[in-house]
Amino acid sequence: MTARTARRQRRQNKTAGALTQSRWEQITYRRQPVEILSADEIEAIHRTGLKILRDVGISVLCPAARKAYAGAGFETAAGAERVRFDADGLTTLLSSIPERFTLEARNPAKSLIVGGDKGLFSSVGGPVYCMDIEKGRWRGSHAEMRDFLKLVQSLNILHQEGGGGFEALDLPAETRHLDLFYAQATLLDKNWQPWNIGRRQTLDALNMAARMLSTDLDGLKSRTVFTGVINTNSPLQLDIPMAEGLMTLAEYGQAAIITPFTLSGAMSPVTLAGALAQQHAEAMAALALTQIVNPGAPAVYGGFTSNVDMKTGSPAFGTPEYVQAAQVSGQLARRLGIPFRSSNVTAANTTDAQSSYESMMALWGATGGQAHIVMHAAGWLGGGLTASFEKLILDAEILQMTAAYQQPLPVTEETLALDAIREVGPAGHFFGTDHTLARYRDAFYTPLVSNWDNYDAWREKGGKTAEQRANEVWKQLLADYEQPAMDPAVDEALRDYRDRMKRAR
Amino acid sequence: MTARTARRQRRQNKTAGALTQSRWEQITYRRQPVEILSADEIEAIHRTGLKILRDVGISVLCPAARKAYAGAGFETAAGAERVRFDADGLTTLLSSIPERFTLEARNPAKSLIVGGDKGLFSSVGGPVYCMDIEKGRWRGSHAEMRDFLKLVQSLNILHQEGGGGFEALDLPAETRHLDLFYAQATLLDKNWQPWNIGRRQTLDALNMAARMLSTDLDGLKSRTVFTGVINTNSPLQLDIPMAEGLMTLAEYGQAAIITPFTLSGAMSPVTLAGALAQQHAEAMAALALTQIVNPGAPAVYGGFTSNVDMKTGSPAFGTPEYVQAAQVSGQLARRLGIPFRSSNVTAANTTDAQSSYESMMALWGATGGQAHIVMHAAGWLGGGLTASFEKLILDAEILQMTAAYQQPLPVTEETLALDAIREVGPAGHFFGTDHTLARYRDAFYTPLVSNWDNYDAWREKGGKTAEQRANEVWKQLLADYEQPAMDPAVDEALRDYRDRMKRAR
Repeated sequence: MTARTARRQRRQNKTAGALTQSRWEQITYRRQPVEILSADEIEAIHRTGLKILRDVGISVLCPAARKAYAGAGFETAAGAERVRFDADGLTTLLSSIPERFTLEARNPAKSLIVGGDKGLFSSVGGPVYCMDIEKGRWRGSHAEMRDFLKLVQSLNILHQEGGGGFEALDLPAETRHLDLFYAQATLLDKNWQPWNIGRRQTLDALNMAARMLSTDLDGLKSRTVFTGVINTNSPLQLDIPMAEGLMTLAEYGQAAIITPFTLSGAMSPVTLAGALAQQHAEAMAALALTQIVNPGAPAVYGGFTSNVDMKTGSPAFGTPEYVQAAQVSGQLARRLGIPFRSSNVTAANTTDAQSSYESMMALWGATGGQAHIVMHAAGWLGGGLTASFEKLILDAEILQMTAAYQQPLPVTEETLALDAIREVGPAGHFFGTDHTLARYRDAFYTPLVSNWDNYDAWREKGGKTAEQRANEVWKQLLADYEQPAMDPAVDEALRDYRDRMKRAR
Repeated sequence: MTARTARRQRRQNKTAGALTQSRWEQITYRRQPVEILSADEIEAIHRTGLKILRDVGISVLCPAARKAYAGAGFETAAGAERVRFDADGLTTLLSSIPERFTLEARNPAKSLIVGGDKGLFSSVGGPVYCMDIEKGRWRGSHAEMRDFLKLVQSLNILHQEGGGGFEALDLPAETRHLDLFYAQATLLDKNWQPWNIGRRQTLDALNMAARMLSTDLDGLKSRTVFTGVINTNSPLQLDIPMAEGLMTLAEYGQAAIITPFTLSGAMSPVTLAGALAQQHAEAMAALALTQIVNPGAPAVYGGFTSNVDMKTGSPAFGTPEYVQAAQVSGQLARRLGIPFRSSNVTAANTTDAQSSYESMMALWGATGGQAHIVMHAAGWLGGGLTASFEKLILDAEILQMTAAYQQPLPVTEETLALDAIREVGPAGHFFGTDHTLARYRDAFYTPLVSNWDNYDAWREKGGKTAEQRANEVWKQLLADYEQPAMDPAVDEALRDYRDRMKRAR
């Protein structure tokens, strides 16, 4: 391999088809995060969060969780759900959460760092529906969900799969998660997020992850393979399925991403500072529970504060308030020394200009705030109810661009190019110079779906919108997809667990 | 007016129709600019710029400009076009450019600050074609150009009109600018940019601006009413029309925006640091000429560095390189203490997702770099060859969002809302609290074109894309447009000048 070829491969690689995409690499944040509040203002939010937990507390619906809190010395009352927190006890517990941890993938080359100066992009998880530009929105099947996973596997810029894209509504609700976990374990060799609602579902995920890594549940305890989302029921409540999921993840050394659902004006105050104080309180209370269950277990601070439209009650996403909240959430997570999760979200119902500018705003918040995990980074549409095949591709483009922006801009004698400028002189051209010829192949970002043709050339190629080109890209990627190899014994163990559990329910 | 009404009016106002838009207000940059290079790296680019001007110099095609440079002590040779610059002489000249200045509008309430912590958004100028989603791209008429100006006048977020939107191709090329200036002076009461190619056209603009302000050419010398774009012919050349435009603007105390057209890989080195060093050199040389002509005249540092696609030669806009270049350009302008101009640009040929995400990237560069003037901030499409009616509206939305993001996030006892959180408690709701009721009306950003409905409500309203809604918005704004009043004598003076000059050519 020549130096030139090596350099090219460092920057991008080609898929089997004609598509060019960025190479596999986590984001590295090399610059200062955007900090829109002063240290004093962050301290004021933090102190308000502590006061909320002391004066109001959290309603904890799960008896086992209440018992855990009581065991750690927090104030509970017999027969009441409320748990109140003293600042010292809470602060001590939170200090044992690691600032960074390794998240294992089936393919060790795709294991991830969560925390520090590293960021990762995770695909959309949670939507009920799926969508493409040909059929509109529909109730997706298991086969279609598998296609979505194949695309997530194919896109290098997606460092983690985020929970199945959309639900396989042709499968029984009770055991749907088992088919999902099997698909994730086998179609992907990158890290994936489980569903973790309640203890049984979370244990199913852990059992299948253990088989995927040829270990057992005890073996998992020292190997973090999961980040799992835990939402508090804002305001100030932790329900049973979420508490169980949290405690089960923590018990086995897995990372709960604690994400309060603090929509300003509805589930939290109409003022952003108040919504963030409440988010901070809820996050601290639930984060503390991970450490009561398993001191030193990894956990992640999730910021999801946005607002509702006060006229209609609709949630707004990717708005100016969302960007500010995301960046302040990054400051609050850094105040605690805990890895930070944000998201790429939009309220748009179709892949139009709005879906792009709201997503760009959200990403500006997430990466400006230096989120360690950007969830729903690709494919989210319609306030999170829909996963879109074209949005997955369009988002992959903006993620690639965002990642490329984070790359260094080298300033050296060679890059300052004084000799080339002397050589070309006034009114000359740089195309043919040695300086250009030695560097042009990987000098600039290469797009996945953007078209830079002039108008006439663009018309000659059919005058396609980015959405139409994204449709072609995902079909090409799907055609090119190759399933990562798996030891047949591991596959057999996974199938066996899935099928046994299905029969048992 | 109650306090509540006053507060609402501070944040937004309604047009005659059902549209809500942000109120008239310049951007205030309250936070640190994004600085991706160290002070040492900026110094290395600055020093390289000085070396380029010392060793290579600039080819100056205009004899009067060469004579001016020679008179200021810079090295010229009889019969040769090249001018070379010593660092000390150049630095002294640049130091007389003001860090900020006032830019007058016909309506004094719409006069602008250029520099300091203020930013302004200017509409697209320069395109040949116009476009809407119904007719596609076409050669626009004077009447259609006037419609475009009316929309620019109507949108509060556009602080300046940027040069006519698109050319009126039904008018004779020789006198088209006179009809443009008359339209700008009469249809708008906000500041507008002239065309300033060559001395005669620039003098026409100055003469009409003087009449608009009921003064004369001498009276203009102490009142800056114009920012006019001056492009160098990269690499390292200043042509006759541009030099004449620059000198005429400076002579009359008007601000030249010096904007090198340094596309990396074609007209400048393939390495971004080299392209920026060359941009810096060209900008400094032309900025110096403004001060030779008129010491203390306002001038602006324009950053437009992007790159070409090395496979096709097409210029790329709104790419990761563009964002980095814009932010570094801001650092270089601040190094010189000169106001900074950037742009909102995209290569997309239609108002699709690409046009939005490239525009958002470009704005990230421009406002992260704290540009004092963001040109082409609304309406630009297809690499600047086309002005789009829908893009104008879609961009107005993202500009409003960007401006709202720059607003403070107040952290006070009142906004931290501890009492409201205590009152609502776990599992409650904030809709009905006094804290919410006192603030909900202007608590959050109100969109111009974004739709936040859920999927079913959105479908019931026709399932329109943002582009379709933007089409409705501009038609509504056009129907609501009211021409700002003008003294009939001023109008007559403008018509008289326009018609006399037309007859004379």
